[in-house]
Order: sequence, then C-alpha cells, then structure tokens
Amino acid sequence: MAQKFEFKVAATDGAARTGVISTPRGEIRTPAFMPVGTAATVKAMLPESVRATGADILLGNTYHLMLRPTAERIERLGGLHKFMNWERPILTDSGGFQVMSLAALRKMSEEGVTFKSHIDGSRHHLSPERSMEIQRMLGSDIVMCFDECPALPATDEAVAKSMRLSMRWAQRSRDAFGDRPGHALFGIQQGGVNHELRGESAEALRAIGFDGYAVGGLAVGEGQEAMFGVLDYAPGMLPEDKPRYLMGVGKPDDIVGAVERGIDMMDCVLPSRSGRTGQAFTRRGVVNMKNARHQDDPRPLDGACTCPACRQYSRAYLHHVLRSQEIIASMLLTWHNLHYFQELMAGLRGAIAAGQLAAFVAGFHAERAQGDIEPL
Amino acid sequence: MAQKFEFKVAATDGAARTGVISTPRGEIRTPAFMPVGTAATVKAMLPESVRATGADILLGNTYHLMLRPTAERIERLGGLHKFMNWERPILTDSGGFQVMSLAALRKMSEEGVTFKSHIDGSRHHLSPERSMEIQRMLGSDIVMCFDECPALPATDEAVAKSMRLSMRWAQRSRDAFGDRPGHALFGIQQGGVNHELRGESAEALRAIGFDGYAVGGLAVGEGQEAMFGVLDYAPGMLPEDKPRYLMGVGKPDDIVGAVERGIDMMDCVLPSRSGRTGQAFTRRGVVNMKNARHQDDPRPLDGACTCPACRQYSRAYLHHVLRSQEIIASMLLTWHNLHYFQELMAGLRGAIAAGQLAAFVAGFHAERAQGDIEPL
Repeated sequence: MAQKFEFKVAATDGAARTGVISTPRGEIRTPAFMPVGTAATVKAMLPESVRATGADILLGNTYHLMLRPTAERIERLGGLHKFMNWERPILTDSGGFQVMSLAALRKMSEEGVTFKSHIDGSRHHLSPERSMEIQRMLGSDIVMCFDECPALPATDEAVAKSMRLSMRWAQRSRDAFGDRPGHALFGIQQGGVNHELRGESAEALRAIGFDGYAVGGLAVGEGQEAMFGVLDYAPGMLPEDKPRYLMGVGKPDDIVGAVERGIDMMDCVLPSRSGRTGQAFTRRGVVNMKNARHQDDPRPLDGACTCPACRQYSRAYLHHVLRSQEIIASMLLTWHNLHYFQELMAGLRGAIAAGQLAAFVAGFHAERAQGDIEPL
Repeated sequence: MAQKFEFKVAATDGAARTGVISTPRGEIRTPAFMPVGTAATVKAMLPESVRATGADILLGNTYHLMLRPTAERIERLGGLHKFMNWERPILTDSGGFQVMSLAALRKMSEEGVTFKSHIDGSRHHLSPERSMEIQRMLGSDIVMCFDECPALPATDEAVAKSMRLSMRWAQRSRDAFGDRPGHALFGIQQGGVNHELRGESAEALRAIGFDGYAVGGLAVGEGQEAMFGVLDYAPGMLPEDKPRYLMGVGKPDDIVGAVERGIDMMDCVLPSRSGRTGQAFTRRGVVNMKNARHQDDPRPLDGACTCPACRQYSRAYLHHVLRSQEIIASMLLTWHNLHYFQELMAGLRGAIAAGQLAAFVAGFHAERAQGDIEPL
C-alpha cells in the first residue's frame, strides 16, 4: 500500500486519461465511478457486494452523517471505514451542497451556514473549519473543500459572487485541513457556465494548491449540452498531474462524455436510486422493469451481463418482486446498475489505455441506439 | 440424490428424533426450521445467503403466489425453484390458512372457499383439488393438504365440525394429488386442544395414508402452555416413521419445546419479520436494536455468533441503520436471525444424536435467563 496520496496518469487518448490514485487504503483506478453511501451504507447493498461490482472507492455524505449518527459518534467508534465495514478509500463531500438542497431555515454568512436538520429540526452549523473537522472525524481519505454551489441558471454576477466566496472558503479549508499524510484535500472549481469565471476560479485554486480538483457547480439543471460545453475547457484549466473530479455525474452518456473531456472521477446516486425504483441501466439503454411487458419474459435483463440479477433471475422474476415491493428487487437491481456502471468504467479505462477511446465511444452509442430487446 | 421422498430417523432422545428427509432436490436434516419465502423471496435475503445460514428447505405461500404472479405464470417460467433461484426443496402450504387471515369476502362451502384478493379485489377459488393443482404448478416438493384451521378458542363442537370437514378435504387432496414420485403430500391433523378430536383426526389421516403429517391448528393464539399440552400427546398419535411438521412455529423456546416433544419440521416468519423491525434473536434472548442504549456500543450484537451482522458490524451500526430505515438493517438482522434459528436447530440435532438433549435444553434456558449483555 502507498503511504501517501499519489496520482499517476498511465495513458492518455485525446483529453481523456487513465491512471491510478494510490492511497494508504488502496488503489483507485481512474476514470473511477464512486457509488454513494449517503448514510454509511450504499442502499440495499452489502459492502462486499459493492466491492464485487468493481468499486475502488465510495462517497459518504457529510451532511447526513453529521446529523445521524453524528461525526463525533463515528469517530468514537473508530471512523467511518470501520463503522460501515468498508476498508477501502472513502471520499466525503463537504456538506455544503446538501445543506442547500435538504436543510431548512438556512442562514448564510461569510463565516458559514446555520441550518435546521431535515430529520429532527435540530440546529447545526457548517463552515470551512467545521466541515474539515467533521471530515477528519469521519476519517475520510479524500476531503472536499467547503463551498457554495448556486443553482443554475443564475446571473453572471450571482455566480461570480458565489464563486469568490467559495474561493475564500477554499483557502480557509486548506488552512483548517493542515498536514495529514495519506489524506487528500480537493479544491472545487466554480464559475457556472462562464469561461472567464471558471478560469478565475481555477487560478485561485492553483494558487492555494490541492491534491486534486473538482469541477463543481455542474449537473444542477443546466443540461448535458451546457455541461459538456463547460467540460470542453474547464478540466484543462486544472493541473494536469492531479485528479479531476466531476461531482454528482451522472447518466452513462454523461460519464462517457466527461471522461472524453478529461475527467478522472465521478459519483452519482443514479444507479442505486434508480435500482430501487425499477429502472435498470443496460448497454442498450434504460429498461423500466415495472413495465408489464416483462411479466412473462424468461430471459435475463441483459444476457451479456455477469451480475447476479442477470445470471440467476428472469425479467419476469425481477418484475414480480418489484411489483410486490420486495426488498430483493432493490438489492438485485442496485447490484445490476452498479455492476453496469463499473463495467462501463472498466471499458473506458481499457479503451484509453489502448488508444481506442473513439471506437469504444462509437460502440457505446451504437449499442444504446438499438434499444432494449423486443418483447417475446 | 434420492429419487424418491424418504425419511430416516437416525437417533432418538426421549420423544425427540433426529434424522434426514431425502428428496430428489436434496436432503433435509431434521429437526428442520424452514424460513418463509412468501412471495418467492425470503424477504431481504438472497437465496444463497439463506442457504449460507444452514437452511435445507424453504416454505412458499400458495395464497400469495396464486394471486401474484399466479401459479400458471410460475409454471410457464419453469416452476418456483427456478423462478426464485432456490434449487433445494420447497414446501408449500395449501393456501387455506391465509385465505382465512388475509382475503376478503370469504364464502365457505363443503366444496371449498371463494374469496377476493387482498391485493386487487379479484375473485378466486380454492378447494382441495385447486390447491393440489396450484401446488403442482409451483413444483412444490412437499405439498400440504387443503384444510380449514379454526381460530382458538372455539367450542368443541365447532372444532369437531371443522376437523371433520378438513378430513374429508384430506381425502380429496390425496385423490387429487395422485401419484407423483419424488413429491410428498402431507396430511394435517386438526382437533384443537381436544385429545379425543386429535385422536379421531390422526386416525382419519392414517387411514388415508400420507408421506408426512402436520400438527395443524396450533400457534393460533392458544398460548405456549396449551400448545405444549397438545404436543405432549399429538405427535405420538401420528406414524413414527413419517416426518411430523408443526406449522407456523415459532419462537426459539417454542421450537425447543416442540422438538423435545417429537416434532421434526417447523416454519415461521418470525426471524425474518422481526429482523425487519429491529428485533434480534440471540442465545441471550430477544434484543431490540432500536433501543438507544446501543447507539454508542462498539460490540457486536453477539460476540459468539458467526453471521455477517455479528462478525462485521457493531451494535452502534445496526442501531444507526435501523434508525435511518436503511435496507441494510433488514438485510443484516434477517441474516442474523435466520442464522441463529439454524444454529439452534443444528444444536438440537447434535444434542439428540448424542443423547444429550436434556443438557442442551437446560443450557439453552440458562443462557437466556442471563439476559442481554449490559450496556457499556
């Protein structure tokens, strides 16, 4: 195991890169997709099953964990890895994004944000310093700067003002994080869809210096075209020798487009959340397993997929347990979706290493264009 | 694999017996506890995990499966074993008990019962002949006679009338079942808590002849003392060389008492249902994992238990995921409970084989009397 946090690019293909992030808790093959383990569990999955899908790293949510069971409790119990039985790397977000989307009665200032818990109404505070403290108590391997993420669309003026606040918070995060060998702190670029503001943000972050850099403030309603528009230039503004992380992305075609544009890490609740509602991601697009056309279908969801849901069950069974609201439906479809996402990442890594990314991407789109198999 | 259904008693200790039921789908070690897979899934468990707890056989519910996805659909899809990915033996109940407890607008006659589905209000019919047909379509290895089970307390007259109807239905079930090598048909003794009626029922069943015999009509509210009172004589009225199955039982101390009295098979939703509500069965009694005293406890639920919930997680974690209503709470606690029940059965089998049942039962009660470990 590496004793420190390191990133090595092994191969590039256009703007895309593949490599390895080494940490004391294990290696992360990039481009990497990080399943989301919001409340110290990837919903409906045992950690060993998440690992079996090919995940090298999980994401934990600071906002949820600070409210329940609390960071102090997790620290007393030996940290998040031990608590949730996942010994490999964990990235934690800063809590800022979810304060904005989930908490009640938020009060923002230069210092930080005060809010009420969506669970029990209790009052809490987050600031760069407090976020660093919480993420340290959790034992996170990759810590994110505390930032503000304005919803798009927003005026350039609002985006600029928010971005500059986030850059001051980035400096405070850096100062509060201190020196923690083997642990990484990532800065977060803001600036919305404005090229100039993205550049200003990147410069501010480079001046502070981080172990990795996130492209923040995307996947918040701007649409894929606008997001790709930003990704055409934003990753190139960030240091080439550090990992670049696109937060909260995304659908399989978002992931492919982001990797083509130089992104190394991503996270999204989509495969797990969709699994629980019966949406299955496949090579041939999204399949709604609740649809009655599956009720007599003895074929697997995807005959080429090697996950347990596809190897051991029929579409008819998956449909039945979904309709019956059985827990096994969430278990099997989440497993399938995470497996599919990790298989996609493995395919992207292999294609970049072989200098065949364009052909891989063409194949990806061609397979999806075929659509789901016909009903019997 | 055996080509036919066979039961061999290997050892006895007092009224208790241990042995093996051989079927074409595998062996069932007795005394056996059968987890309940109501709607073609043991809730919150993958079948391979159920097997890992030590289960040799599952129970499926005819009532639920006939309504959704329907027996006809399961037959077209290759039978229940293939459908739910469980290749070992399955016992199905007759549907009668659940028509009485779940369905709406029941109409009983000598012929059978008509009712409305609790799911969608659709109209259905069950009779001895239809129940045999459904259980055949499901592919059940052990088929139960269609019977009526009156709730206790009831007058002797009501119990006698109901028992005699069930005996006429037992004959019709036997006739409709026909000759199906490798598949077993079990008769069900009725008669409530009345010694004479139990004897009359046993005689009627022996005259017809079955591959196994259930003690029915218990665990319906009569209490443990009354149940044990019946079990002091009822199993002895049934053929010694056939398996004896106590339906719907029970709590661990019910199981121990039933095995002491000569019962070979049992089933109950308790370990899985309690797992979903946070009740954990342990050597030291039932532990309510929702209780706040666990929230900072780094110790396992049971340090001597080898299930994944006990080996890999703290009480604090189990408490947290229960409080957060995370699916993993149901997964881990169901696994633990099923593991505990199967371990108890293995202990009972070993003790009977060694002629040490009395000592085992004394140890069982002594350990429970200690109560749960003290909070830290």
